[in-house]
Amino acid sequence: MVLHLIGLGLGDIKDITVRGLETARACEKIYLEMYTSILSYGLDRTELNAAFGKEVIEADREMVEQLADQVLDEATTADIAVLVVGDPFGATTHADLVLRAKHRGIAVDVVHNASIMNAVGCCGLQLYSYGETVSIVMWTDGWQPESYFDKIVSNFERGLHTLCLLDIKVKEQSVENMMKGNKKFEPPRYQSCSEAASQLLTIAERRIERGEGSPISAETPVVGLARVGWRDQKIASCSLAKMSTADLGPPLHCLVIPGKMHPLEEDMLATFALSD
Amino acid sequence: MVLHLIGLGLGDIKDITVRGLETARACEKIYLEMYTSILSYGLDRTELNAAFGKEVIEADREMVEQLADQVLDEATTADIAVLVVGDPFGATTHADLVLRAKHRGIAVDVVHNASIMNAVGCCGLQLYSYGETVSIVMWTDGWQPESYFDKIVSNFERGLHTLCLLDIKVKEQSVENMMKGNKKFEPPRYQSCSEAASQLLTIAERRIERGEGSPISAETPVVGLARVGWRDQKIASCSLAKMSTADLGPPLHCLVIPGKMHPLEEDMLATFALSD
Repeated sequence: MVLHLIGLGLGDIKDITVRGLETARACEKIYLEMYTSILSYGLDRTELNAAFGKEVIEADREMVEQLADQVLDEATTADIAVLVVGDPFGATTHADLVLRAKHRGIAVDVVHNASIMNAVGCCGLQLYSYGETVSIVMWTDGWQPESYFDKIVSNFERGLHTLCLLDIKVKEQSVENMMKGNKKFEPPRYQSCSEAASQLLTIAERRIERGEGSPISAETPVVGLARVGWRDQKIASCSLAKMSTADLGPPLHCLVIPGKMHPLEEDMLATFALSD
Repeated sequence: MVLHLIGLGLGDIKDITVRGLETARACEKIYLEMYTSILSYGLDRTELNAAFGKEVIEADREMVEQLADQVLDEATTADIAVLVVGDPFGATTHADLVLRAKHRGIAVDVVHNASIMNAVGCCGLQLYSYGETVSIVMWTDGWQPESYFDKIVSNFERGLHTLCLLDIKVKEQSVENMMKGNKKFEPPRYQSCSEAASQLLTIAERRIERGEGSPISAETPVVGLARVGWRDQKIASCSLAKMSTADLGPPLHCLVIPGKMHPLEEDMLATFALSD
């Protein structure tokens, strides 16, 4: 039988493809990977169950990893669907699942969909001019890594745009709960464009203060994108300094640092200029 | 009223999203950009018309550019859909259309979908580790540019993967027809993975012969992808030399030059190893 990995796209249940919907409906069992589910307001359980005509089993990413053997066992005798926000190949977890299925001789079918990796094109910067994608991590008092800044600079100096994926903290435990052994988790936290911009600004300023200089500075134009593919999507173009105080609303956010721009790209960004 | 840019995804009509289908159905007029249409065997006119409940107006990319004013005029008084293979922001044409709509105060709605820029994830190489995307151009006797090779090398030396989009020649005229002023076009030509690999191999060999050396050589592992997102999709992993004689079947092809690989990426590629 077949393991179907089905991308849900970026918004709500209507962003699934016709093929994805039909495929999932025909499956014996449907799992939904809930990694970013809190963000997907359209993906409520009742609506999902109704759309697929059967109960959708929710599993967070950790659980999908734990469940992998069970899912693969089931896929040996029945068609099983795993629904994934975005495109199935957005996360390493799914590559691992595909690999394990292949090693067990289970056929894998993939239903592609939009993900932030291509939908970011909506800000008008051409996708083929992006360099390496960067993940920005939330700083804590004791841990303030800068490695992602070097990657951005490396892209920037080659004239390439950088897509910065922002940090998500889910299933974090407070020190107190961890000590007490309570399996209680903090509410999820999502890094905003302003938080990410603030960190970049701090790194740039530190480097400038140290006399090292920085090609990225307070005046560098950046683009903030919030809730890409949702009905209330917001795109804002401004300087890094201004972005550090901008409010783009609820998550999920991502930040783009443009490299060398074509006039058409500049014109597109101008339509998203943040008014004062 | 609204100009809707709707991505069709990579395969046939079932790869449209539920939102895309409903949106297009509710539009007064539906245009289909036919740039890669010959490739989309599932997208035949009868099936499309049936799916949308009205006649779909086919227009090639050149015509979309010419039609832009007309489409925008129409969008001032009615909802108009422009269907695009892949995601709407895959081509500069559409950014231009969006920009012109915005300047005229016409609302633009985008329905995202998968495109090769994210679906290439199916070969198992992580999307965030790709550098700049490269377009390989078909060589002619008198014109053999190498600039794309330098971009591949630049990615490769930074440990990044390179997605190479391969050349498509449509609406080309023979010298004879051009001289005679005949508006007759040659059949479209699509560069294959083997053709692209041959060109890369030639460039590498020339550089090695000239004593310049080349980090990309006959033994460099590459990945060929054909008809991504189609039912008969094919992925093949082998050396550049071997790819130069490999037959991956009908178009559309693209080629990936992996950079530094994670063990999981290596394991995934191994499942696509071309047998001798």
